[in-house]
Amino acid sequence: MSSLRPLWAARGVAVIGASDRTGAIGRLPVQFLQRYGYAGGIYPIRPDGAPVAGLTSYGSVAEVPDSVDLAMVMVAADKVVDAVRDCAAAGVPVVVVCSSGFAETGEAGAALQDELVATARELGVRVLGPNCIGTVGTASGQVSSFSPLFSGERTELVPGTLGFVSQSGALGYGAVSLAFERGLGLGWVVNTGNEADLTATEVMAELATEPGCAGLLAYAESLGDLPTLAKVVAGGMPVALLKAGRSEAGAQAAASHTGALAAQDRVVDAALRQAGVVRVDDVDELLDVGDVMGLVEVVRGRSIRRVAVVTTSGGSGILAADAIEARGMALADLSEETLATLDEIVPAYGSTANPVDVTASVMSNPALFNDALAAIAGDDGVDAIVACFCVLTGSDVDAVVRALSRVREQTGVPVIAVRTGADHLAPEAAATMRAAGLPVYQTPARAVRALAALAEFAAPRTVRGAQPPTRAESASAGAPPDWSALDEQGLKDLLAAGGLPVPVGRKVADAQDAVAAVKEAGGRAVGKAVVPGLLHKSDAGGVVLDVTPERAPEVFERLAALGGEVLVEEMVPGGVETLIGSTDTPLGRIISVGVGGVLTEVVADVALRLLPVDREDVEEMLDETRLGRLLAGVRGQEPADRAALVDTVLGIAALAAELPDGAELDLNPVTVLADGQGCRILDAALALPHAALAETGD
Amino acid sequence: MSSLRPLWAARGVAVIGASDRTGAIGRLPVQFLQRYGYAGGIYPIRPDGAPVAGLTSYGSVAEVPDSVDLAMVMVAADKVVDAVRDCAAAGVPVVVVCSSGFAETGEAGAALQDELVATARELGVRVLGPNCIGTVGTASGQVSSFSPLFSGERTELVPGTLGFVSQSGALGYGAVSLAFERGLGLGWVVNTGNEADLTATEVMAELATEPGCAGLLAYAESLGDLPTLAKVVAGGMPVALLKAGRSEAGAQAAASHTGALAAQDRVVDAALRQAGVVRVDDVDELLDVGDVMGLVEVVRGRSIRRVAVVTTSGGSGILAADAIEARGMALADLSEETLATLDEIVPAYGSTANPVDVTASVMSNPALFNDALAAIAGDDGVDAIVACFCVLTGSDVDAVVRALSRVREQTGVPVIAVRTGADHLAPEAAATMRAAGLPVYQTPARAVRALAALAEFAAPRTVRGAQPPTRAESASAGAPPDWSALDEQGLKDLLAAGGLPVPVGRKVADAQDAVAAVKEAGGRAVGKAVVPGLLHKSDAGGVVLDVTPERAPEVFERLAALGGEVLVEEMVPGGVETLIGSTDTPLGRIISVGVGGVLTEVVADVALRLLPVDREDVEEMLDETRLGRLLAGVRGQEPADRAALVDTVLGIAALAAELPDGAELDLNPVTVLADGQGCRILDAALALPHAALAETGD
Repeated sequence: MSSLRPLWAARGVAVIGASDRTGAIGRLPVQFLQRYGYAGGIYPIRPDGAPVAGLTSYGSVAEVPDSVDLAMVMVAADKVVDAVRDCAAAGVPVVVVCSSGFAETGEAGAALQDELVATARELGVRVLGPNCIGTVGTASGQVSSFSPLFSGERTELVPGTLGFVSQSGALGYGAVSLAFERGLGLGWVVNTGNEADLTATEVMAELATEPGCAGLLAYAESLGDLPTLAKVVAGGMPVALLKAGRSEAGAQAAASHTGALAAQDRVVDAALRQAGVVRVDDVDELLDVGDVMGLVEVVRGRSIRRVAVVTTSGGSGILAADAIEARGMALADLSEETLATLDEIVPAYGSTANPVDVTASVMSNPALFNDALAAIAGDDGVDAIVACFCVLTGSDVDAVVRALSRVREQTGVPVIAVRTGADHLAPEAAATMRAAGLPVYQTPARAVRALAALAEFAAPRTVRGAQPPTRAESASAGAPPDWSALDEQGLKDLLAAGGLPVPVGRKVADAQDAVAAVKEAGGRAVGKAVVPGLLHKSDAGGVVLDVTPERAPEVFERLAALGGEVLVEEMVPGGVETLIGSTDTPLGRIISVGVGGVLTEVVADVALRLLPVDREDVEEMLDETRLGRLLAGVRGQEPADRAALVDTVLGIAALAAELPDGAELDLNPVTVLADGQGCRILDAALALPHAALAETGD
Repeated sequence: MSSLRPLWAARGVAVIGASDRTGAIGRLPVQFLQRYGYAGGIYPIRPDGAPVAGLTSYGSVAEVPDSVDLAMVMVAADKVVDAVRDCAAAGVPVVVVCSSGFAETGEAGAALQDELVATARELGVRVLGPNCIGTVGTASGQVSSFSPLFSGERTELVPGTLGFVSQSGALGYGAVSLAFERGLGLGWVVNTGNEADLTATEVMAELATEPGCAGLLAYAESLGDLPTLAKVVAGGMPVALLKAGRSEAGAQAAASHTGALAAQDRVVDAALRQAGVVRVDDVDELLDVGDVMGLVEVVRGRSIRRVAVVTTSGGSGILAADAIEARGMALADLSEETLATLDEIVPAYGSTANPVDVTASVMSNPALFNDALAAIAGDDGVDAIVACFCVLTGSDVDAVVRALSRVREQTGVPVIAVRTGADHLAPEAAATMRAAGLPVYQTPARAVRALAALAEFAAPRTVRGAQPPTRAESASAGAPPDWSALDEQGLKDLLAAGGLPVPVGRKVADAQDAVAAVKEAGGRAVGKAVVPGLLHKSDAGGVVLDVTPERAPEVFERLAALGGEVLVEEMVPGGVETLIGSTDTPLGRIISVGVGGVLTEVVADVALRLLPVDREDVEEMLDETRLGRLLAGVRGQEPADRAALVDTVLGIAALAAELPDGAELDLNPVTVLADGQGCRILDAALALPHAALAETGD
C-alpha cells in the first residue's frame, strides 16, 4: 500500500492550529470533513482544548487517543517545525503543511523550509507543502483542505477514477471545481504547493498504484523526477500535464513563484514527449483530455489515426476535418461498400463522403441513423468516430445517445460526441452521454484534441532498447581524458579514437610541416587557426579553404599570425551541413541535432532529446527537422548518407554521457556526404564551466 | 437605410409554404414570430387559405392586404422560382429561400440555383440562401427562422450590439445559442446558406451601417468579396471571422459542401490580415473575441501591448504570462514608484513584480485591492490589465467587480477578468461583470486571446498609400508585350525595361559570339541553356558558372547540345538568395517573397499578400520570414541591400498586376548583394495557362 495513502484515505486526521471562529482557515478543514461525510476521526488540535465545530479538541497530537495518520499543520510558519516534531513523536507518518511563509517569501523563508525538510527527513515524516491548500479523497469524503471551493453552497464532490495533482492551490482547486461542474469525476486531489519534500511526480507515481485509478491530470510549474513519471506512463497510466512557464516571461514568473530553476520550454516538450506524457496548454484542455481517459481501456494497444466524422451540420464537419489534420490524424477513406450503404440512407442534400453529413432528417429517424453509424463503424478503414451535432434539443438526445453507444459497444470503435449548443436546450444531455461512456465536447476542435490524446494513450508502446553503448565499451578508450586540455585537434583525436568520423589532419609546426600535411591530406586541404577562445573562426579569417602545397607556407604564416596554432585537414567535399550538440539542462543532459553550417541561426531548426537516446529516437529527430528532407536530396541532389549520420549521433550521445557536469559540446558543421560516403565532423568545440576547469587545474 | 433591412427589421413577413401541422418546418417561423413578440405583420401563405398557428393565411403573397417586405420561401425546390416571381410581383424586395435541393445536391440543383439567381436579378429581388435557416432581428423579436433553437423551452433572445453572420445554419444557430447562454447579446443574426445571391460579406457590410452595430462575428467556408470586408474594417467596425477549411481535408469538405473553390489557407490568412479581420480558430474563440468588442470604443486608436497581470493565484499569473508572450504582447515593466506602492500593500508571500500576486488577503480587503489596482492602472507603462481569480465565491464578487470597474472608469485602462471556477460558486458573477463592462473568461489563455483581438481592433490604422505605380507609368513600356513569346532573355529584357535589375547578358549565336559576350560581361560569365520547358536548369546541367573567354567555345557547344539557345550573362557574386513570385488565387492575385535558391523547398519560408502592396507591406513580408535576419547579416556577414530588394519587389508587384489571367511569375533566385550594391534577378520564368497561350496564337 502506498505510504502516502493517508493523503486521500486517512484513518484519522488531526488539524493542528484549529479554530472555532467562523470563516477561520483553521476551522474550514474540520467543517469540510464533517460536511462531506468523512467517517474517520477528526481531531482539532489547539492549545486551549476548546471545541471546534462541535468536536472535542486536543492540546497536542500526542493527546489524541485514536490513531492519526494525517496531520494538517495550519500554524504560523515559525511554529511549523515544532508541529512536525510533535507529529513525528505521535507517530503521524504524513503531514500536510498548509502554512505559508517559506521559500515563496524569500531567503529567510527558504532557510525555514530547509529546516522543515531536514527535520522531516530526520524523523521519517513525509511532508506535503508547505504553502498548500491540502488534499481530497472523494470516495471517503476526506476533504483535508481549506479551499473555499468546499464552502460553496452547491459544491458536491464528484467521485471518479482520475487523480488530479496541482502545484498551484488556487488554480488547482479552481480546475477541480470545473471538473466537478462538468461531471468529470475525480478520486483524488492533491495540491503540492512548495514541494519541499513531496513532489507532484512522486504523488502521481503513488496515485498510479491506487486501485481504480484510471488516469492522472496535473498542473505543474517545475518538473521534478521525470524518469518516475515516464515509468508511470510506461505502466499503462494515461497522464496529461498542464506545464506552465512555456514563455520566457512565464518561466521567469514560475521561477520567482516556486524558486525552481526553469528548463527551456523546448527541453520540457521533448522530455514530456519522451516520457509519453500528453502536454496540454490550458485548463479546459486538461479537463477535455481527462474526459477521454475512460476510453483508454477500450482502445489500448490500437492505432487511432483514421477518423470518420458523422454530422448533421456541414460546418461542424469541416471544422472537425480541419482539426483532424491539424492534430496529425486523417479523415478515414470510406470503402465503396460503406459509401454504397450510405447512399441509400443519406438524402441528396447531405453528403456520404467523409465528413458524412447524414442531415437532420436521418438523425431524427433512429433506424436510419443506426444503420448509417453501423456502416461507418463497421468499415475497416475507420479507427474512431467523431459525431457532431449542433442545436440538439432534449427530445433528440436519447435516440442519439442510444445509437452512438450501441455502435461503440458492438464494434469497439471509440465515439466522441460534439454538441455545439446551449446546455438548456438539452439539459440532461451531458449527463446522459457521460453515463453512456460518450465523451462530449462543445466544439469539433476540442473533441478532436481529446481524441488525439486518446490516440497517444492507446498507442502501442515499443519498449525502447537498452542504452546505447558508451564510448568506453565501443572503443579502446582507457582512462577518462583530461577534458579541459582538449583543443579542436585534441577533441577530434578523441572522437576518432571513439570511431567517429573526423577529417584526416594534424597540427603543423611550421611552413614546411604545413606543406607536408597538405600532401598527407591529399594535396588539397583546409587550414585552420586553433586559437583558444576564438569562436566563429571563419568570420575571423581563421579558416582558409582549398590550400595547395604551393599556397601552404603563405597560409601557415597568415593563420599563425592570429596567435595560436595551425591545423591542416583534408578538404571534404560539400554535403548536407548538420549540427550535433549536447548540453546540460535542469531536466538532464540533452543531445541536439539540426540544420548546421552558416544557416544554423537563420533556419534555427534543431530537434532535441534527453539522454539516453536510441536509434529510433535519432531517426525521429531527423524527421522532426528539415534534415529529413535535406538528407533525402532536394532539387535533384543525390541522397546523403543518413545512416552514417544516425551512427555518428549515437556515438556522440554515448560520448556526451561521459562529459563532466556543465560541459557543452558543439559539433558544427557535421557534413553528411553522398550515400555510402559517410559524414565528417568538420568543426568540434567543447566548452566547460569554470568549476570544471578549476577542478582539472586549468 | 440598408436595402437588406427587412432581413432583421421587416414591417411584415410572409411565410410561403406555411403549415399548421405541429412541428412542421412551415409552421415554425410563424410560431416563433409570435412567441418572440414580433410586432409586424405575420402572413402565412398556403394555397388552401387555412389558418396557421391561429393566424389568417393567404393564398398568395399578392393577396396580403398589408405591406410585406420580407418573404420566407419554404416550398419544394422546384416551386421556389415561381414563389420568387410571386414575391417580385407583389413588390417584396427581399426573399429568404429556406428550401434545400439546390447547388448542395449536385448538377441539377446547381442549374436550378442558377435559374433562381437569374430570375431574382431580372426582377430586382434580393435572395438570401437557398438552403438557409433564416434570420433574426432580436430588438424587434423578428425570428424569421426555423432553427430548433427557438423551440427550446428556455430559449430567450438576448439583444445586443453585435451582428452574427454564418454560412452554416446548424453550426451558426448552435453558436448563437452559446452566445445567448453566456449573455453575449446579438442584435442581428443572418444565415446565408448557399449564398446564391447575397454573400456573408455583403450582409456584413450592410449590418455595419445599422445604427448601434458595434461589431461583427462570422462563420464562413468560402470568402466572397474581401475588399468590401476590408472597407467595413477600415470604417472602424471590429470583425472576427471563423473561416473553416484551414486544412486540405477541411477545404475539400468545404468545397464539396458549398461548391465554392477554396483558396489556399495561407492566402486566406494573408488576405484577412491585410483586410484587418481578426481570424479565430474555433466557435468558443469567436464568442470570446465577441466579448471584448464592447471595449473597442474605449480604447480606439490606442496601442495595447504592455499588459499587467493582477492575480490571487501564482499559477494563473504564469499561465497569463505565457499567453501574453505567445500572443505577441509583453508583460508590462512596472515603474519603481508602482513597485514601491505595491510593496506596502502586498504581503511577503505574494509578488509585486508583474504578474502581481496580490494574494487572497489583499483581494478580500476592498481598500487595499483598490489601491493596488489604482497603482497598476496609473502606471504609464501599462496598456491593459488582466485580473485573474480562481475559486471566487459569491460574496467576493461584488467587491472585485466594483474595484475593477472603478479602475477602468477612472483610468481608461481596459480590464479583462479571468475566473477559473465553477459557475455555481458565484452564480451572479458573469452577469454582474458583464453589466459592469468587464469581459470575463474561464482561463487566462482565453482572456489574453481576446485581449490580443482587442489590441488589433484598437490599433491605429494607417491608411495605406495609393497603389504602387504600374510598369506603364514607371517606365517607357509602350504597347503590352506578347507575354507568350517571352523566354528567359525576353522576360529579363522586359524587366530591365521596367527598371528592374537583371544581369548584363544576351543570347549568343555561336562559339565566337559567346567569347565576345563573355568579354562584354566582364571576362567572367555564366552560360545558360535556354530550352523551352526545361525547368530546374541547373539540375539538368544547363548552367555553367565561371566561364572565361577561353572556355566559352567549349561551354557554348555543351549548352547548345541541350537543344535550345545559349545565354551568356555576367557572373554575379554571391549574396542572399531570395525568391519573388506572383500567381492567381481564388481571392485574387498574390505576390510572394521568401528564401530562395537551393533552399527554397527545404526552408519553405515565403510571405504572401494580395496585390496591390505598398512599401510597408513589403517590409512586413521580409520580417515575417527569415529573410529579415538573413538580409541583416548572419554570422558576421555584412548586411545586404534590403532597400534594393524592397524596390524590386514593388516593381515586380506593378508588373504582376499587368500579367494575363492565370499567369505564374517565378523569379528565383533574386540575389541581394551587399548594402549599396543592389540585387539581381538571376533567373526568371513566366508560365501561362494554355488558354492564354492559345489566345496569343502560340
